[in-house]
Amino acid sequence: MPFKAIAFASAASAAMLLSLPAAAQFAKPEDSIKYRQSALFMMGQHFGRIGAMVNGKAPYDAKAAQANADVVASLASLPWAGFGPGTDKGAPTKAKPGVWSEHAKFTEYSEKLQAEVAKLDAAAKTGNLDNLKTAFGAAANACKTCHDAYRAR
Amino acid sequence: MPFKAIAFASAASAAMLLSLPAAAQFAKPEDSIKYRQSALFMMGQHFGRIGAMVNGKAPYDAKAAQANADVVASLASLPWAGFGPGTDKGAPTKAKPGVWSEHAKFTEYSEKLQAEVAKLDAAAKTGNLDNLKTAFGAAANACKTCHDAYRAR
Repeated sequence: MPFKAIAFASAASAAMLLSLPAAAQFAKPEDSIKYRQSALFMMGQHFGRIGAMVNGKAPYDAKAAQANADVVASLASLPWAGFGPGTDKGAPTKAKPGVWSEHAKFTEYSEKLQAEVAKLDAAAKTGNLDNLKTAFGAAANACKTCHDAYRAR
Repeated sequence: MPFKAIAFASAASAAMLLSLPAAAQFAKPEDSIKYRQSALFMMGQHFGRIGAMVNGKAPYDAKAAQANADVVASLASLPWAGFGPGTDKGAPTKAKPGVWSEHAKFTEYSEKLQAEVAKLDAAAKTGNLDNLKTAFGAAANACKTCHDAYRAR
């Protein structure tokens, strides 16, 4: 088969490998939804505390920035397991159908976010506000790209 | 002042040091409540997956047990910041008033839990199911002790 088809099949298999066991981990769709919302809410809280420093709404505290970035980075791998097949309903959710119909793209966005928050964590460890600002901007952009595409207002 | 009074004053100061900045981190009590519930729900999900293995409801998978124990251990320090002063209401919560009126005891229970899940994480890394069972039982007991005292049914 042509390269594109192989690439698509591989991506589809990878997505299934990632999503099928994930779905099986939750007793019911409601739990999946609550789980992903929990992880994303927590990430938002800690990310927002860094944002407050970056945007001058809170004094820059290198140690606190690092602690918050550590939490964001350690949570960043978790929400995606909560977007398994059949979890588009079961509890109130803002997730758009594209999460499932364009799952490869959604996964790509989630991986981009994970890469950016790893960079944010590294930047926070430098103790330099400018480094933090740059990395925060890139991570915030990764959040926004995915929210714009896959989260209803 | 006598030792007991000093110890109490120290414990009270420590509790304030821990809880005051924590409360200030959240924009409103509702966020604190949502945050602590998110962290505890996620811990429960991952802890429950280990429990299924320990109780023979799922096949023992050493790697999965370790991954779940890692998540539980990394989340275990987080919920407590969400129990700051004034967060006894603001959103539906099962937290009993004792969380605040007996804060030193609540903190003691939360620290016991953190110690037990650190042991659970170490036990999971051994790849031995018996070690996992022992550590799981102790950690489950730490969960239950605090829930019985401070979580309404």
